[in-house]
Amino acid sequence: MATVGGLRALPRWLLRGRWTPLPAGLCSRGLAGPGRPESEPRPTSTWQRDGIRNIVLSNPKKRNALSLTMLKSLQNDILHEAESKDLKVIVISAEGPVFSSGHDLKELTEEQGCNYHTEVFQTCSEVMMLIQNHPVPIIAMVNGLATAAGCQLVASCDLAVASDKSSFATPGVNIGLFCSTPGVALGRVVPRKVALEMLFTGEPISAQQALLHGLLSKVVPEERLEEETMRIAKKIASLSRPVVSLGKAIFYKQLPQDLRTAYCLTSQAMVDNLALRDGQEGIKAFIQKRKPIWSH
Amino acid sequence: MATVGGLRALPRWLLRGRWTPLPAGLCSRGLAGPGRPESEPRPTSTWQRDGIRNIVLSNPKKRNALSLTMLKSLQNDILHEAESKDLKVIVISAEGPVFSSGHDLKELTEEQGCNYHTEVFQTCSEVMMLIQNHPVPIIAMVNGLATAAGCQLVASCDLAVASDKSSFATPGVNIGLFCSTPGVALGRVVPRKVALEMLFTGEPISAQQALLHGLLSKVVPEERLEEETMRIAKKIASLSRPVVSLGKAIFYKQLPQDLRTAYCLTSQAMVDNLALRDGQEGIKAFIQKRKPIWSH
Amino acid sequence: MATVGGLRALPRWLLRGRWTPLPAGLCSRGLAGPGRPESEPRPTSTWQRDGIRNIVLSNPKKRNALSLTMLKSLQNDILHEAESKDLKVIVISAEGPVFSSGHDLKELTEEQGCNYHTEVFQTCSEVMMLIQNHPVPIIAMVNGLATAAGCQLVASCDLAVASDKSSFATPGVNIGLFCSTPGVALGRVVPRKVALEMLFTGEPISAQQALLHGLLSKVVPEERLEEETMRIAKKIASLSRPVVSLGKAIFYKQLPQDLRTAYCLTSQAMVDNLALRDGQEGIKAFIQKRKPIWSH
Repeated sequence: MATVGGLRALPRWLLRGRWTPLPAGLCSRGLAGPGRPESEPRPTSTWQRDGIRNIVLSNPKKRNALSLTMLKSLQNDILHEAESKDLKVIVISAEGPVFSSGHDLKELTEEQGCNYHTEVFQTCSEVMMLIQNHPVPIIAMVNGLATAAGCQLVASCDLAVASDKSSFATPGVNIGLFCSTPGVALGRVVPRKVALEMLFTGEPISAQQALLHGLLSKVVPEERLEEETMRIAKKIASLSRPVVSLGKAIFYKQLPQDLRTAYCLTSQAMVDNLALRDGQEGIKAFIQKRKPIWSH
Repeated sequence: MATVGGLRALPRWLLRGRWTPLPAGLCSRGLAGPGRPESEPRPTSTWQRDGIRNIVLSNPKKRNALSLTMLKSLQNDILHEAESKDLKVIVISAEGPVFSSGHDLKELTEEQGCNYHTEVFQTCSEVMMLIQNHPVPIIAMVNGLATAAGCQLVASCDLAVASDKSSFATPGVNIGLFCSTPGVALGRVVPRKVALEMLFTGEPISAQQALLHGLLSKVVPEERLEEETMRIAKKIASLSRPVVSLGKAIFYKQLPQDLRTAYCLTSQAMVDNLALRDGQEGIKAFIQKRKPIWSH
Repeated sequence: MATVGGLRALPRWLLRGRWTPLPAGLCSRGLAGPGRPESEPRPTSTWQRDGIRNIVLSNPKKRNALSLTMLKSLQNDILHEAESKDLKVIVISAEGPVFSSGHDLKELTEEQGCNYHTEVFQTCSEVMMLIQNHPVPIIAMVNGLATAAGCQLVASCDLAVASDKSSFATPGVNIGLFCSTPGVALGRVVPRKVALEMLFTGEPISAQQALLHGLLSKVVPEERLEEETMRIAKKIASLSRPVVSLGKAIFYKQLPQDLRTAYCLTSQAMVDNLALRDGQEGIKAFIQKRKPIWSH
């Protein structure tokens, strides 16, 4: 299996912000395990219309496990023509009753070896960071159970809409594998006591609890899930792509900074935003009481 | 228009904590735009009684837009005799159905120029940081719609009480100007998925949702808004000003630190607090089962 | 009174992570006050069964005040055989209607002197950090009022289960002693406006509000408090101790890091976890559809 998504091969926008290289050794890239099957069909399906790209985890028989193949397929689908003006927003959903059950445990046995394990977790981490570093908003649309790295995927998306029957868990501790990487994403969206109860007990929380605590941005009845998610996606697709892109990047950039640095970064971003063609068009249209025409 | 609030002119207590200067160029102060009218009446009104200063945004015809004039008027009202023992707490409210609609878009057109835009955003950021760096608690009392920098003002106050008919939005993206500076304050009080949904869609959240997610500290029916806000203000005004002031400063100072540094800072603050005259008076009064008499 | 818990005397696992020494002077250890009574009975009681250690604050007459004696007793009970494989989880509860009322104010008078005050706050801070740095999960079981440092103790535990009649406050400001050290723990688990309202007004919040805002992980009726807490404790005691221990340590370590560093740390932790005997046993058992047998 060819190594996909090496740091040097990524587009420049992926290198901005926190995507800085770490000291050698701390995160050395493992070698791929030998001779894994590549003949199976692609585990994701994807299509794009009116600026909205739908990516669907399509391996319901394996509960949409985030195998290395699945992760790389997802990574490719997210990265594909990321710079195109025709792409405005991405929606990640899943086939079947399980959104995703997390890593494929058959890839984590002793026989696969430490280097292969390293590749699995690093690829997974890269996909999660890619979501945050991507130029367009990425929405998780969840209808069912999301566990371990599946829960991490939901937590990592910019927005997350779920049906009220969905639930969320990080049950790795039950099988002796603490959900430490999912804890990175989870710990940044829910209060720490909620995260720790999920991590220490492995017990699921409901969609309503997930909404209450910040893991989701919206919960709707199952029959309205697609409608509501697409309504948000269409709204975002109707906006100026460079404006949204600038806003997403600066939001994540300022968040960990001290207050003064954050305001200096964002004050400059506001001035830059106004200097964009779409920035001035929007304000002109508002003052002239007409709809703006974005040039993107 | 004279430049007001330059860093060097601010009182010393404003320089403590995170108020450190940044590298030149990153945040260079723009020149004021030429010949702006100054003849209009002051856009805020203010009065003070029993230690409580009320500042009211008083330009309801313009939806209390945070024009440069409004921002500087607000800044002056907050800074006025900030060191006086007679000031114990500040309440910021607004006239009319809109708390504040954010920046005055007429100040953000191409014609006003980049330097003027820079002055607008820097002055706005200074006002928001001033609230956090001020020696007394500052409460937002909201009865209506607060959008963009108006929402940022609510998020920046130490406490925020709102009527249940109030709502909150960051709709800049609709007119091609992403609410990046409001995102600084918003992103520090609500979970990031809530902030991002507000920023990407521009859609409002209700007072109840705002309370749930941390943007407000209390929601009450409209007819009880003033009563409840003044109850909290009077409570704070009845306390020892130097104790409250020390507590507010150390809270914001320790928050971004690692745990050990935070505990070292605050352990020292507790010892310093006990060494204050009001610190010992309070404990004596408690042990003697009488009301404390603060010397401030 | 002998000095207990000096930094150099602590086991090595307490030194990991954020437990780094600070510049001399910032946190110099105060001398113990002269001649304090030591004849009183131990203010905590403790027993251990099936991997679960119960520590009970047992001075209900003094509202379980966190006197220096109480703090050191608690510290000893937490530290006792912390490395033993027989210890899987700790539950901290209290006798009587008050969980804990915080510091003993008689220890904070002028007469006790600044060095003694320093020892009180440093010992308290050490106990709070010890909870986070301890190798097993620590659960607060709260049935009643928790104020000031008592509220801080609840906030500092990894998990916190409370009866619905419990309430939480940081009322120090009423007696001229701002709850600055409790603010460290509180400010890291609840939104800042909630923390500031508690700190500035001293007013209590209910168990339900505490749950909503992240101070608690669960609220149950009083008659189910022990049952539910022990259910969680037994669940944790049934898991692999080294796996839980590794997971707890890495969770707190990654939380304040930037995203890339956090993923590097945790990706390595996942690989290390898989290399543990219990890591491979858990995955084998799962694939073989049997219960895992932990070797710890």
